[in-house]
Parts: sequence; C-alpha cells; structure tokens
Amino acid sequence: MSALEFEVLKKDKETGARLGHLVLNGKEFETPIFMPVGTKGDVKCLTNEEVEEVSDGLILGNTYHLWLSPGIETLKLFGGLRGFNKWNGALLTDSGGYQVFSLSDTRKISEEGVTFKHYKNGSSLFMSPEISIEIQNAISSDIMMSLDECPPFNESYSYMKESVDRTIRWAKRGKDAHKFKNRQALFGIVQGGPYKDLRKYAIEELEKIGFDGYSIGGLSVGESKEERIEVLKYLKDIMPQDKPRYLMGVGTPDDILYGVENGIDMFDCVEPTRIARHGVATTSLGRVNIKNKEYENDFSPLDPSCECETCKKYSKAYIRHLFREGEMLSYRLISYHNLYFLKNLMHNIKEAIKNDKFLEFKNHFLKKYYK
Amino acid sequence: MSALEFEVLKKDKETGARLGHLVLNGKEFETPIFMPVGTKGDVKCLTNEEVEEVSDGLILGNTYHLWLSPGIETLKLFGGLRGFNKWNGALLTDSGGYQVFSLSDTRKISEEGVTFKHYKNGSSLFMSPEISIEIQNAISSDIMMSLDECPPFNESYSYMKESVDRTIRWAKRGKDAHKFKNRQALFGIVQGGPYKDLRKYAIEELEKIGFDGYSIGGLSVGESKEERIEVLKYLKDIMPQDKPRYLMGVGTPDDILYGVENGIDMFDCVEPTRIARHGVATTSLGRVNIKNKEYENDFSPLDPSCECETCKKYSKAYIRHLFREGEMLSYRLISYHNLYFLKNLMHNIKEAIKNDKFLEFKNHFLKKYYK
Repeated sequence: MSALEFEVLKKDKETGARLGHLVLNGKEFETPIFMPVGTKGDVKCLTNEEVEEVSDGLILGNTYHLWLSPGIETLKLFGGLRGFNKWNGALLTDSGGYQVFSLSDTRKISEEGVTFKHYKNGSSLFMSPEISIEIQNAISSDIMMSLDECPPFNESYSYMKESVDRTIRWAKRGKDAHKFKNRQALFGIVQGGPYKDLRKYAIEELEKIGFDGYSIGGLSVGESKEERIEVLKYLKDIMPQDKPRYLMGVGTPDDILYGVENGIDMFDCVEPTRIARHGVATTSLGRVNIKNKEYENDFSPLDPSCECETCKKYSKAYIRHLFREGEMLSYRLISYHNLYFLKNLMHNIKEAIKNDKFLEFKNHFLKKYYK
Repeated sequence: MSALEFEVLKKDKETGARLGHLVLNGKEFETPIFMPVGTKGDVKCLTNEEVEEVSDGLILGNTYHLWLSPGIETLKLFGGLRGFNKWNGALLTDSGGYQVFSLSDTRKISEEGVTFKHYKNGSSLFMSPEISIEIQNAISSDIMMSLDECPPFNESYSYMKESVDRTIRWAKRGKDAHKFKNRQALFGIVQGGPYKDLRKYAIEELEKIGFDGYSIGGLSVGESKEERIEVLKYLKDIMPQDKPRYLMGVGTPDDILYGVENGIDMFDCVEPTRIARHGVATTSLGRVNIKNKEYENDFSPLDPSCECETCKKYSKAYIRHLFREGEMLSYRLISYHNLYFLKNLMHNIKEAIKNDKFLEFKNHFLKKYYK
C-alpha cells in the first residue's frame, strides 16, 4: 500500500480546473484543498478541534521550525509531531528550504547542502537533503517535500539553471535517504523562476526520479501577479497529469482561484492567520481592516455571508475593541473566520468544478471581492 | 423584585464557612463562588463558551478599562456589556477605583472625586462616585461596586480614618446616583487597612446606608498573609450575616481557602489567567512552571488529577514547546486549565461545607499543594 493515492475525478469543461480524490494513509480528501499552516506544531491561536472545524483535515508543519524546537529527539520520542501536538488529521511538511533561505541573511550553498544561521540565536546550522528527510521522517508527516533552493524570482538565467540542477540532484538524494516510503509520500519541487525551459526541464528530470506529487516552488516570492499567472498557465499542461500538484505558499482567495484554474490541487499559506494578527479579515466583500474607525459601533459580523462561529456571535465593533486593546482573543476570532472563509471558498470551488461552472464562480467571486 | 437575592443555606460546623444561594436577576449560583476576570470584556484568550466551561457563570468586568474602551456610548448602544461581548452569564463590575489608584502614578483626591492620568496616553481623567455608577449603569452589570479609595495597607491611622470616611460618603453618593436599582445590585466596600476599629466603623456606616452586599477592600495590596488572615478573622463575625461577602481581588487557592474559612462568599482574581501568560499552572500538586527544562519530554498533563480539556489532551512537553516558542495557544491552554482548576476547587469546597468537612478538606488540599 502506498502512503498517497490520487485520482483526478473530473475537470471543469471550460478551464480544466481539476477535482480530485486524495488518500493519505487511509484518510480521504477532495481536492483542490487548502492547508492551514501550523508552523510550530499549532495553527496559531487555535486548538486542534477548531482547526478541524475550519480546515479539510490536512495541515502543514514547518520542518525548519520543528527541527529547532521541539527537535528531532523529542519528535521521535512522541512518535512524530502528531503524538506531540495531538493533531488527528493529515499532515504535510515542507522541506525547511524556504525558511533556510528566507529567515537567514547569510548562507553558504554547496553541493552538500546549506550552511546558515539560526534565525533566533545566530548559531551556525547545516541543512542537507538527507537532514531534511531525516527531520521529516521524525515528524512523520503524510507528505514530505524534497529540499530545494528557492532563489528570488528574477535571479539570472545562469544562476537559476545551476540552482535547478542542484535542486534536482538534492531531490534524488532526498528520495534515496527516505526511510518510510510506505507511510510517507514524497514530492519533488519544480523551481526555475520565470524561465519556461527551466521549469520544463525541472519537471522532466523530477519525473525521471519519480515522486508521489509535484510542487511548484519559487512563486509568491516577489514576482507580480501577472508573472505568477503566466508561470501557472505554462505549467498547467506540462505538469504530470496523474499526480497531485501543490502550489507552495500561495493562498489569497484570488491566487487560489487562478491556481485552480490552472490545474493546481493543493495550496497552503500563512496569510489567513498572519493577517488576522494584524486585524485583517478576508470576507466575501473583500478585506476588512478591523482597526478602521468606521467599525466602532458596527453591529454586523466580519462577513455578513459567513456562518462561522466568529460571525455567528461577534460584531465588528466588539472584535475591533478587542484588537485595539491588544486582546489575543481578537487574533483568534479573526484567524478562525479567515480559515473558515477559505474552507468555504474551497467547498464552493469544488461545487463549481462539479457543475462545470468554475469560471462563472470565479468571476462572480472576484467581482464581489473587489467590489 | 430585587436584582439580588441571597441566602446562607448552611454553615460548616467547625469553621462556620458559608454555603449560600445567590440569585442575580433570575440566574442562580451557589456560593462560595470564584469569578474569572474579563478586564476588557473578555476573559483573556478565551471565548464565552470556554468561560462557561471553566467558571460558574459569574464573571467580573473592569469599569475603568471598559470606560476607556469601548466607552459609555458604545456600551449604551449595545445595551450594556453583554450586548457587546455576548456573554450570557452574570456580571459583576468593580468601581474602577482600584485601577485609578494602581494604574496612575499621580492622582489628586478631593471630596468630589479623583483626578488622575489615563494609563496609556497620560491624559487627565476624573472619576467620581456618580461617574463610576454611570459607567456601571451603562455596562449593565448584575452587581456594581461603590467607588472607594484603596490606600496602601500600612497607611497611617489618621489618613486611613479620613479615607474610610470619604469612602463611606462616596458610597452614599453612589447609591443616590444609581438609576436601575431593580436590575443592578450595589455593594458597599469595607476599607480600613489593618485597623480593626476602622473596619468595624466602615461596616456599621455602610450598613446604615444599606447595600445588597459588602465587599472587603484593601487586602492583597502588599500586606503579609498573616496580616490578611487576621483582618479576615476579625471581619468574620462583624460583617452582616445575611448579605453576600465579597473579598475583592483575592484568588490564589490558599487565599480562597482562608477566605471561605472566614465566611467569604465571593472571590475574583486575575491571577489564573495572568500567571498562565507567564507559563505557570496551578495544580493539585502546587504550581507548575512550564518553562522548566524538566518538562521537555514530559508526557503527563499539567495536573494528573485534572479532567479539563487541556489536561485531557496535551502534555507538559507540548505546552512547554508552545510557550517557549511564544505561541499564544500556550497562554490559552494554561488559562483554561487554571480557571478550571479553581472551578473544581470551589466545587470541592462546597461539597466539604455540605458535609461539615471543610477543615479536613482544606488541610488535605494545602498539604498536597505545598507538598
């Protein structure tokens, strides 16, 4: 038995947006799916029960953060992250590569791996494809990522070529190091920035190695929305058809819609919980910045169309008061809403694909969202 | 019909600890009762549903903080605090006096009231007995407090006498200003520091004015435990027998036990949630400082005897990891436990009084608590 099974059940007639069935160690999911991020084991502010309510049961853990704390030994002792944080759902881990590149000012890349600084105490750390897999094996996620280098989008062609080649070699080394193939799936990561031939080359080489799914990296790293959509459009037809496609770190409502339109099956993003801690809610009528004075005496919920626990009970005025007073409950209430909103969006997206009405749904949604 | 009804149902044979029945606008409670503090409308980190789970349904709101935000106008617009924060239970408010004295470095007390500085922006504010009542009327709590001055415990006798007299005059003015006597009860506050004759005098004068209950102020303000217990012992026999007695701002397990032993019916304290945010849990085996290295790989819950949601699910090791990583979920999980612990303590106290075994229970509890 394989840790991951995947089937495309249907494609939207107009766009080709994919409705899929994903099975992870016996747990079943419909795709496209959005995965909340539990950076350090928890989705910030929320308990497992709440994450169950506002997700489809698959969340992401960050390998880099979990490596630093609680660390491999504790994770092993508890039988993996889920023995530790008691999450009952499915779990995907990133490779740690993104944080190695984004959270450290200085780093040294060699064929062997990356030497970089601990984001808190500055001590020297080393990450290799094998170490990344070792940590992810200790976390015991259902889906793991190969260690990749994630250069800036507009890195030079020559550097990007060198980097893509190294990422492919790292992917092979990661696969070789992976100990528990029957219970942890492994994805390869397609890098290449804006260079179509490099993206194509990366896909072909990763397919030769063979992975359970393929991730698109190097997007949402500073490129424009147009550049992002162009890459997605290009990848749509050349990504392996029968494997899940995961667009890493992308998760605003419009990015999700453009992703789905271009054949993406899986998304993750810290945004819903991060903007919540800045007092911003995602709603069917666009973003609501709860700090605004106009909400001071507003009896209405964050989103009038939403049926989440936050919107069923609390007014904008009360959440604004809590936020202005620095009460953590406000982060929690908005985080809950923002994730619920995305869960609901994914539900509506799946319904739209089932009915071959994805484009109509997308246009209707975006029109309301951007008023 | 009165906003408050109270009856002493039984006294513990050995100690005289009181078991009481309190009715607040139709909502019934058993005393002794502990009230979690919702300073700014929310009990920090927790939703109303959770506060219901870890309290007996009566919480405290801080008049000073609610006055500054959301303010009287918003509170009136929402029909009181409970229209705003959606708390379904009962509500007690303090007078704001304690914060006026504790949160401002400089203040000027006159017969009319107190001029002091806003604790955040330093602007000049004025609080009088009438203003305190006006705010509490706007909050629409079930039980209100008269504005009192709260001098340091070891203030001179002559100043304390002057202050007690003023507090009594303020109590009379507050009662006169109170608009909604049939739906909001009003308590008088007994000050007097360590001076027994002043405490006795305060009680007699407040009784002449007539209040729905009597609060003991000026404790937990720097005096020793022995000094505190001596005041409580003295007050035990001279406080009005047929009215609820509220020991303000006191709520460690041992202070509650000594309070109950000396006839106290009501307690409140920010401690359970405040120490939670410093990583400290109250347990049947004493305090647990979750930061301690010894808990790094500890599979056991915060309190092995506890059946709260935190203890049913999460290990010390996981909560320690969350706390060390600054994850707000840790504050929430410990706050929930700490309040549940007190709710359970109050339950056991009431059972002990019913069975005339209060002293046995107290000694057993404290022996375990202090090992």
